[in-house]
Amino acid sequence: MSSTFGSHFKISTWGESHGAGVGVVIDGCPPGVSLSREMIQQALDRRRPGQSDIVTPRQEADEVEILSGVLDGTTLGTPIALSVRNKDHRSSAYDEMQHIYRPSHADYCYDAKYGIRAWAGGGRASARETIGRVAAGAVAEAVVRRLCPDVAVIGWVEQVHTIVCPVRPEEVNAAVVESNIVRTADAESAAKMAAAIREARSQGDSLGGIVACTVRNCPVGLGDPVFDKLEATLAHAMLSIPACKGFEVGSGFTAPRYRGSEHNDAFYMEGERVRTRTNFSGGIQGGISNGEDINMRLAFKPTATLMLEQDTVNDAHQEVRLRGKGRHDACVLPRAVPVVEAMVWLVLCEHLLHQRALRLN
Amino acid sequence: MSSTFGSHFKISTWGESHGAGVGVVIDGCPPGVSLSREMIQQALDRRRPGQSDIVTPRQEADEVEILSGVLDGTTLGTPIALSVRNKDHRSSAYDEMQHIYRPSHADYCYDAKYGIRAWAGGGRASARETIGRVAAGAVAEAVVRRLCPDVAVIGWVEQVHTIVCPVRPEEVNAAVVESNIVRTADAESAAKMAAAIREARSQGDSLGGIVACTVRNCPVGLGDPVFDKLEATLAHAMLSIPACKGFEVGSGFTAPRYRGSEHNDAFYMEGERVRTRTNFSGGIQGGISNGEDINMRLAFKPTATLMLEQDTVNDAHQEVRLRGKGRHDACVLPRAVPVVEAMVWLVLCEHLLHQRALRLN
Amino acid sequence: MSSTFGSHFKISTWGESHGAGVGVVIDGCPPGVSLSREMIQQALDRRRPGQSDIVTPRQEADEVEILSGVLDGTTLGTPIALSVRNKDHRSSAYDEMQHIYRPSHADYCYDAKYGIRAWAGGGRASARETIGRVAAGAVAEAVVRRLCPDVAVIGWVEQVHTIVCPVRPEEVNAAVVESNIVRTADAESAAKMAAAIREARSQGDSLGGIVACTVRNCPVGLGDPVFDKLEATLAHAMLSIPACKGFEVGSGFTAPRYRGSEHNDAFYMEGERVRTRTNFSGGIQGGISNGEDINMRLAFKPTATLMLEQDTVNDAHQEVRLRGKGRHDACVLPRAVPVVEAMVWLVLCEHLLHQRALRLN
Amino acid sequence: MSSTFGSHFKISTWGESHGAGVGVVIDGCPPGVSLSREMIQQALDRRRPGQSDIVTPRQEADEVEILSGVLDGTTLGTPIALSVRNKDHRSSAYDEMQHIYRPSHADYCYDAKYGIRAWAGGGRASARETIGRVAAGAVAEAVVRRLCPDVAVIGWVEQVHTIVCPVRPEEVNAAVVESNIVRTADAESAAKMAAAIREARSQGDSLGGIVACTVRNCPVGLGDPVFDKLEATLAHAMLSIPACKGFEVGSGFTAPRYRGSEHNDAFYMEGERVRTRTNFSGGIQGGISNGEDINMRLAFKPTATLMLEQDTVNDAHQEVRLRGKGRHDACVLPRAVPVVEAMVWLVLCEHLLHQRALRLN
Repeated sequence: MSSTFGSHFKISTWGESHGAGVGVVIDGCPPGVSLSREMIQQALDRRRPGQSDIVTPRQEADEVEILSGVLDGTTLGTPIALSVRNKDHRSSAYDEMQHIYRPSHADYCYDAKYGIRAWAGGGRASARETIGRVAAGAVAEAVVRRLCPDVAVIGWVEQVHTIVCPVRPEEVNAAVVESNIVRTADAESAAKMAAAIREARSQGDSLGGIVACTVRNCPVGLGDPVFDKLEATLAHAMLSIPACKGFEVGSGFTAPRYRGSEHNDAFYMEGERVRTRTNFSGGIQGGISNGEDINMRLAFKPTATLMLEQDTVNDAHQEVRLRGKGRHDACVLPRAVPVVEAMVWLVLCEHLLHQRALRLN
Repeated sequence: MSSTFGSHFKISTWGESHGAGVGVVIDGCPPGVSLSREMIQQALDRRRPGQSDIVTPRQEADEVEILSGVLDGTTLGTPIALSVRNKDHRSSAYDEMQHIYRPSHADYCYDAKYGIRAWAGGGRASARETIGRVAAGAVAEAVVRRLCPDVAVIGWVEQVHTIVCPVRPEEVNAAVVESNIVRTADAESAAKMAAAIREARSQGDSLGGIVACTVRNCPVGLGDPVFDKLEATLAHAMLSIPACKGFEVGSGFTAPRYRGSEHNDAFYMEGERVRTRTNFSGGIQGGISNGEDINMRLAFKPTATLMLEQDTVNDAHQEVRLRGKGRHDACVLPRAVPVVEAMVWLVLCEHLLHQRALRLN
Repeated sequence: MSSTFGSHFKISTWGESHGAGVGVVIDGCPPGVSLSREMIQQALDRRRPGQSDIVTPRQEADEVEILSGVLDGTTLGTPIALSVRNKDHRSSAYDEMQHIYRPSHADYCYDAKYGIRAWAGGGRASARETIGRVAAGAVAEAVVRRLCPDVAVIGWVEQVHTIVCPVRPEEVNAAVVESNIVRTADAESAAKMAAAIREARSQGDSLGGIVACTVRNCPVGLGDPVFDKLEATLAHAMLSIPACKGFEVGSGFTAPRYRGSEHNDAFYMEGERVRTRTNFSGGIQGGISNGEDINMRLAFKPTATLMLEQDTVNDAHQEVRLRGKGRHDACVLPRAVPVVEAMVWLVLCEHLLHQRALRLN
Repeated sequence: MSSTFGSHFKISTWGESHGAGVGVVIDGCPPGVSLSREMIQQALDRRRPGQSDIVTPRQEADEVEILSGVLDGTTLGTPIALSVRNKDHRSSAYDEMQHIYRPSHADYCYDAKYGIRAWAGGGRASARETIGRVAAGAVAEAVVRRLCPDVAVIGWVEQVHTIVCPVRPEEVNAAVVESNIVRTADAESAAKMAAAIREARSQGDSLGGIVACTVRNCPVGLGDPVFDKLEATLAHAMLSIPACKGFEVGSGFTAPRYRGSEHNDAFYMEGERVRTRTNFSGGIQGGISNGEDINMRLAFKPTATLMLEQDTVNDAHQEVRLRGKGRHDACVLPRAVPVVEAMVWLVLCEHLLHQRALRLN
């Protein structure tokens, strides 16, 4: 298992859904950065279960404890250990799943790969695993903003099932996103999406969608060709999020529609600053940020665990029927937004520290 | 710069487009694998310039030399150094570009990041950089096939501009793909695509498209949650390829269209083998291969270097006009196919070796 | 700060001496290994303070909690998080040291490097940091012994100040070592060493010495030339232990005394097994274990924190006098033995997993 | 095999003794550093065979070619590939060794580990492997000196067999070292040592010794506790050098002789600078450089390949007699000095770049 991410700002997450807790150790955080428990708790509150009626009702306060690496509100440069205890886990709901593989979930593959599986709650394959990411992302954000105070990372739900929020990336307002329980970019879409999620849930079914994310005021020069291009590490980060099936940056999968003469982003000068007239590149050229907004989109599949009866097999390799139990999100997207943002902060922090090591003057 | 990829099967590529040559060092290749110069050369021949009239006419035989790590056709377990000399580079074609930034190319960002740039031929931002990948991919293929002889990796051009090849992944025939100069999956699409590429080139313009790739007979259990899930390392690999703007696996960006009850892949037994009725998962569940075909798609933007006049700026930050020179692909996709396949082999090899270390019985 | 060690069996330790606790996350432990809390606790009990009258009287039970990665006594293949709470820390003893640098301690360098320092208890520079190593070492031991049940790692105190224990490595008996509070290899030496330590402590002074360690029944083939030779990763591991000033393997610093004709270890056959007549190589040739005992020695300096008045400077760069307070080991060696052994297990585990990935048949 | 060293300034060496050549790829070199072929060649000339009558007579000019990463004498920030062709290899001298294991050489262990071995010339286990290290070290030196122009790394032969050069580290003069073929620190010792080496060679025998090395004007703050302490990465680097059996820093193996009150290095102020009255610490405290001279010593065993008949076994596991052939150093120490210095430069460069990433102000 590889639960380590990053090279300079290196995080190691841990924890099963129904074990003692979940958390992360961050190795390589620079010293002298202001960091409080509240900064991390706020980030976790945005992903925690039970925050609205359209997400899983599991009741977890997800209170974080800083175990090391911080003294009097300032990072020491030593490893930062963050821990969240599991409280409201009801393993009994999983009794049936101990031997039966949920379709499109990780159950079968974990058994095949490891020969053993923490069946209760999904173990590491639970969305609960993302707590460590979000906690570490809050620390990464603190580091990046210390160095580049204007950088903003804004994620939002652009689509749920067939409902598309029409707001363009450059017009998205973070306060609006945070003001609705779906975390989409306008109130009208929010109402429609919430209704769709409630309906799917009432049917025991689930929905997927698109999360979009934009980075504003990113410094020029982040990204490390040829293998750790900025879009490559972002893609790695995003496809590691549970249920993510696709990633695109800038024009993405619409790029083939254009000829080069239409798609190229013409450079011009805006005062002292090199700008581009269009932004098909999505803020990245040659694997390196060019200072324009970094625009990306992620596809999420509908949640695999359903309250409907499904055909499947068990670990004795017999064909059986399964009806899911437990408390699950009928749509992960509202809670995926802070996870996506956290992964972006982690990627930006990594490249920013690398660039500081690299550039001598 | 990060020109290193992989952890067990670790490759370090090197070389500028107009320097002495390009190549790769592979550290961590298991000993005892049959490997000949011809195996590597054949892979390189598939990506080399000048192989047909729809790719760049730069004449490069791209002859590879094995400098170390192989004795009498067998790997030693020591680093394998592979080198290709540059022959037909005409730096004079780039004189104008020494100070002018090509729109949507890496020129500006390299200058901003590194403060210096190998302007002739694009340096490391040239597609020539991918020679090291393809050479290393041929070695990775030899390792994987030694352990799992049935694994097949088949890439093809699914779309050029608006022309879509209708062949489904499970029906794609590798021999057909290799029989046409576009590397698409049927002759009719090939003819249309080739015509479109010729037309674009004659106009000094360029085209993008989609490369699809399928892995057949992949062993169950590859991929390392939570951060190095199989789809995450594939995404990393793919987005590191020049001009790639998007990656999806399985249902990808179509996933949101479905409800969970439609999208889940029901398990069933086929003899002793656990199979799925559908394959929206694209052969990967919970970040781990499940034995079904691994299906992925990559979006490529149209080539940035055009033979048309464009608005841009120079390194003195003046707005200027630029008309491209040099010899370029009007469409990179036919030559991108072997690069995509090479990256898939590298990812498979990495996970396969990791799994061998991990699983004790 | 680099608190991560290993590549396959990767550990990340955390924790300050006077913070909430200390611990470690292990990423990459194979699944299916028997592991109990008791196995880890036993290892920690061997290094804990207060275990005898010749070590620091700080009272810490050092009770470990397994937070993740283990289900019903078996490893899951997921990250194993281990945590120990700090209990008996008295920061008031360190008030004076908040601004004064202890001679030959890490205080000045931490301030110079990080610009901030967890002054109470030495932070990460405290020997308390080694708890994470010992806990992880117990897990590594379980993995290695699962694969190679006969491997034994035995450390002992060979020298304290000028008192040398005369027992030869091949004659050292682990039970004898564990039966005396100094952890040396015979009772007579133990008595002398304990007396020397008590005398030094009564004078407010401290002593150093030599820890020796032998690995018996190590499989042939561990170690990864050219940079991760077995002796190189052992040296890395050992010199990272607080107060260690030197490392040697086999003949070590006595090697120059011999001519090649005297120093070469002649091969001979013992049944089916290739053996050497002598073992100047210390069980490692060309960076790879040869199956003979791996013999190594480590030099430890006397503890830096003294109860005597010393000349030093403060963080305002004024010359001052300092008399140490707090509870410290007058000689770290008895408690260093389990730390040395833990680092050896970690190194063996790393190479063993690597070798499994590498060797195809 | 692990032929990669470093994380920020990452080198991958390659090449067998009797293959096409040897070399290195450096990934992560900062851009904008002045670097010429001559700088690298000079370093290689100090380690090349045939430079005097006391080293191996193999005739190799060891001419280095820069294949990438440098433009007009300045580094590009892209991978720097350096290659040296093998010229004077006579594999016939090794015919007998194809199946016979040289005592105390890597032959047996390579066969046991890899199942295959480049028997001619020792393959990667040849001292020829160190060419990549020395070439990369020259680049690391250029980077370090660009940032810290006053840093000096001076290695010398302190002992050959029983002959000890009495010059103290702080008195060693680099010009004197370079003026004698042994690379020791005074002319009288040089004469004695050269005579001893010639005598051993005439007998078909070999000698070991001690190489010492000092770093002057090292900036304060290099080294990354807890695992990548400066002495730990130095130890790793040094023990990876062929024939090295031990490493010590500062007081090293003499540390146990002292009580803490004798061994502690009292701090005092020298103008604005924090200094220590003594330097038992060897310039490193808590794993971090303190600005004093970094003093280290390395033990080297006598060369394993002898021109005398020895008892050994062959790869059919029969006991046989072997008399070495080929051209070898009767004493590797004069040529080891530039290798030791190169590894020190690589370690310093790594830590220096890491510190730049870490420290925010």
